[in-house]
Amino acid sequence: MAELLKGKPVADALTEKCREKAAELKEKGIVPTLAIIRCGEDPSDLSYERGAMKRCESVGVEVRNVVMPRDVEPEEFYATVKKVSDDPGIHGILMFRPLPKQLDAITARELMNPDKDVDGCTQGSMTGVYTNTKQGFAPCTAQAVIEIFDYYGIELSGKNAVLIGRSLVVGKPLAMLMLNRNATVTICHTRTKDLPEITKKAEIVVTAIGVPEKFGAEYFSEGQIAADVGISWNETKQKLTGDIFFEEAEPVVSKITPVPGGVGSVTTAVLVSHVIEAAQRLNGF
Amino acid sequence: MAELLKGKPVADALTEKCREKAAELKEKGIVPTLAIIRCGEDPSDLSYERGAMKRCESVGVEVRNVVMPRDVEPEEFYATVKKVSDDPGIHGILMFRPLPKQLDAITARELMNPDKDVDGCTQGSMTGVYTNTKQGFAPCTAQAVIEIFDYYGIELSGKNAVLIGRSLVVGKPLAMLMLNRNATVTICHTRTKDLPEITKKAEIVVTAIGVPEKFGAEYFSEGQIAADVGISWNETKQKLTGDIFFEEAEPVVSKITPVPGGVGSVTTAVLVSHVIEAAQRLNGF
Repeated sequence: MAELLKGKPVADALTEKCREKAAELKEKGIVPTLAIIRCGEDPSDLSYERGAMKRCESVGVEVRNVVMPRDVEPEEFYATVKKVSDDPGIHGILMFRPLPKQLDAITARELMNPDKDVDGCTQGSMTGVYTNTKQGFAPCTAQAVIEIFDYYGIELSGKNAVLIGRSLVVGKPLAMLMLNRNATVTICHTRTKDLPEITKKAEIVVTAIGVPEKFGAEYFSEGQIAADVGISWNETKQKLTGDIFFEEAEPVVSKITPVPGGVGSVTTAVLVSHVIEAAQRLNGF
Repeated sequence: MAELLKGKPVADALTEKCREKAAELKEKGIVPTLAIIRCGEDPSDLSYERGAMKRCESVGVEVRNVVMPRDVEPEEFYATVKKVSDDPGIHGILMFRPLPKQLDAITARELMNPDKDVDGCTQGSMTGVYTNTKQGFAPCTAQAVIEIFDYYGIELSGKNAVLIGRSLVVGKPLAMLMLNRNATVTICHTRTKDLPEITKKAEIVVTAIGVPEKFGAEYFSEGQIAADVGISWNETKQKLTGDIFFEEAEPVVSKITPVPGGVGSVTTAVLVSHVIEAAQRLNGF
């Protein structure tokens, strides 16, 4: 039986810390505030938004919902992003992506002040993660994996970590974050050959590809720590599953994050912690 | 006997291509021009500068030498960098680093237009390499390794590549460049455990740490391709050597870059190719 690395206690601990910091900021007259920019009514955006709002409320972070139609004019959208970014009362911005087709993702993201880029999508944030400097923020999902490792006392330094997936939202930034913690990091992807041979030899395996139950028993070995960032709808089983075939991997490894209830459940807590940190930084604390 | 992956033919081929492109630009009234910003008279800066100037001359790229004393006032330095960056007659900028202590490296680099950042040190260039988009340029030394692989027909896609070193000048950008070419990349460093076990299993090993003859026979296995980015003064042998103990590794591997005469000898050719590309991009070709 592997130890389950559940996300809830991690999120709870992080939330508790945020609550204290938010209270300190309020004593100084600062109400940490997150703007959520959304185009249209995508169900998964709405679901994440509800979670984020609930988390913010529980901590004492205000939320401003900036909602535009899916067919918003580019000029209007960019002007809105700029206005939100320039607003001194807003400390963090979450902009749902992918954006509608008529909008240019790079133009949109670069209108944001990197100091308010709490989901780590601007050039400033990417450079911060890449160069290991305190500039901008890491993407919340990538940071959530690190928070789980920290909470459960999993040391990364000197460990052989294999990461499957190289997206800009999870794979690449997480590779950098793990490298910054002195792990020896191997980045695998669709072109990787003999993947099970590579993953089986690792001490830590992180999957982030979004293909339900792709990685079965043959990818794992005894004593490993497995973190599953993937979460997608499994048509066959009619439920949400991770990239890892949990029933097969769990008996093999020593620790594993469940899906749901693992990495995903820490993401909004990280988001809120970033808003608090942004409010601190922007006010010179 | 391993095949020697010499840098000279790679540099020559790249230079020849650059010569043609420079001629095309000149027909359009554009003289591709590189500005070299240097503080003081560091011998290794001067040596690299001479090499770069010679290479530029052979291609038809003009060079403007911008030399300031080592104790230059920060205001004067920053103003000079900005002036050089704003000069429409300059297409590429090479700024020798590390800068003197009184100067802030980040301030200085960000004064450069990323479109002219031919040695890939600005945030714009780093993001370009990290996100695999045509923005700015990769650091010349990292790109030189890729040029060698390309010239000798060494396919990276699907290969297991191990990189030792994680600097921003070579290790990290090269990891990204190799990942962009679909290699499975493992990034190793001082905290990596059982390094020989890791390197021996790779198909490609790239060393970039700057410790003379650190990696002997025990790090290599038959059939491997080894590229040595390190070049440092070997006190014992009173000569320049790479990170790889060449005499030990060469009989084991199938292909290897010599030091000197390997990666280092391609760097200025890459620099010149970046100046040409910058001149093309800045003029909309």
